[in-house]
Amino acid sequence: MKAVVLFSGGLDSTVLACHLLRDQVEVTLLSIDYGQRHKKELSSARHIAGLLGTPHQILSLPGLSSLLGGNALTDHSVNLPEGHYAEETMKATVVPNRNMILLSLAAGHAISIQYDTVAYAAHAGDHTIYPDCRPVFADAMEQALKLADWESISLFRPFVNWSKADLVKRGNEIGVPFEHTWSCYAGGEKHCGKCGTCVERKEAFELVGLSDPTCYTS
Amino acid sequence: MKAVVLFSGGLDSTVLACHLLRDQVEVTLLSIDYGQRHKKELSSARHIAGLLGTPHQILSLPGLSSLLGGNALTDHSVNLPEGHYAEETMKATVVPNRNMILLSLAAGHAISIQYDTVAYAAHAGDHTIYPDCRPVFADAMEQALKLADWESISLFRPFVNWSKADLVKRGNEIGVPFEHTWSCYAGGEKHCGKCGTCVERKEAFELVGLSDPTCYTS
Repeated sequence: MKAVVLFSGGLDSTVLACHLLRDQVEVTLLSIDYGQRHKKELSSARHIAGLLGTPHQILSLPGLSSLLGGNALTDHSVNLPEGHYAEETMKATVVPNRNMILLSLAAGHAISIQYDTVAYAAHAGDHTIYPDCRPVFADAMEQALKLADWESISLFRPFVNWSKADLVKRGNEIGVPFEHTWSCYAGGEKHCGKCGTCVERKEAFELVGLSDPTCYTS
Repeated sequence: MKAVVLFSGGLDSTVLACHLLRDQVEVTLLSIDYGQRHKKELSSARHIAGLLGTPHQILSLPGLSSLLGGNALTDHSVNLPEGHYAEETMKATVVPNRNMILLSLAAGHAISIQYDTVAYAAHAGDHTIYPDCRPVFADAMEQALKLADWESISLFRPFVNWSKADLVKRGNEIGVPFEHTWSCYAGGEKHCGKCGTCVERKEAFELVGLSDPTCYTS
């Protein structure tokens, strides 16, 4: 397998990258600047790629945020909600069609460099509010990716039945540098500790019974 | 129906836009600068959108060409082949995963502005060398688009069984300003008359028995 890994610099995709490298998969990492509020994840991505010694590209799409406005991640006029992902207010963090856009770009790159796989860190906790995190959506994308080129492109998502806590557990086993990963949507100097992804991150470490190396503001 | 139309400024998508406007569809046009050699199509797109009085956006993705290198449309180090689309050499004009990338961006925009449809001008002559012009690929994308948001996004491709000549015929019936559309991949001042898309364009007018208003270099 030769895999282009969608790599945000967050916890999930860093565990995925390390998990694949551990299995001797040939990996190239792709991060995408789609105008997200939390650009800090891209610095984390760069730093972690350096630690791992893995090829890495950041694709900058500066015009995209204006096309996908009206959500709290790419539109600064929309307030970022706090609380648990399951809450209704968290729908403000849904970036329209983000996963299809990211997967299609990763697949284009894979075809271009003659890789056979796109890998991403979809996991079982993801789909509560995000329509494009549903397994049924990923199944449909898998079919489309098989037909996007004359050679089939595979969609690899080994964590699809894993919880965030399972990811933390696996990451701990294989030495993931959690302290360098970035989850927070608020994009401040430290993790805010209040947004959906911070709350989920904290919970995962607690559930596994591991010390959380993240610096939270609160 | 409220449709985001993928609008290159070429003949096919201009016929589509006019066809939909004729049917009273609410239309917004989306053009994408993916680093194509023939940027002139974007000027045509802007001009035609003005003539039609239709909302129009050009999304500029300057970093994309480096991600999708190795083809004659986005990589200037690759020679542009001349001749008929059916020829083997024309495979150099395949931009990896272009249609999935464009459709995913259009769908993201549709979700963002609460439109229900993405329309594009796929037609029966398209799929000889382009894997992502095959109807079976579009069928798979249709399924994925239905699941990309909580509200289903439809993929509308009314020309899927039409030839290029059928498009010219329809365009002629509804007053498409053919002289302002741009097809040529070479990106010169006039249509080159030799690249695959110029050859196909010429043929289509000949088949319909219409005078071709295009200025060709040869």
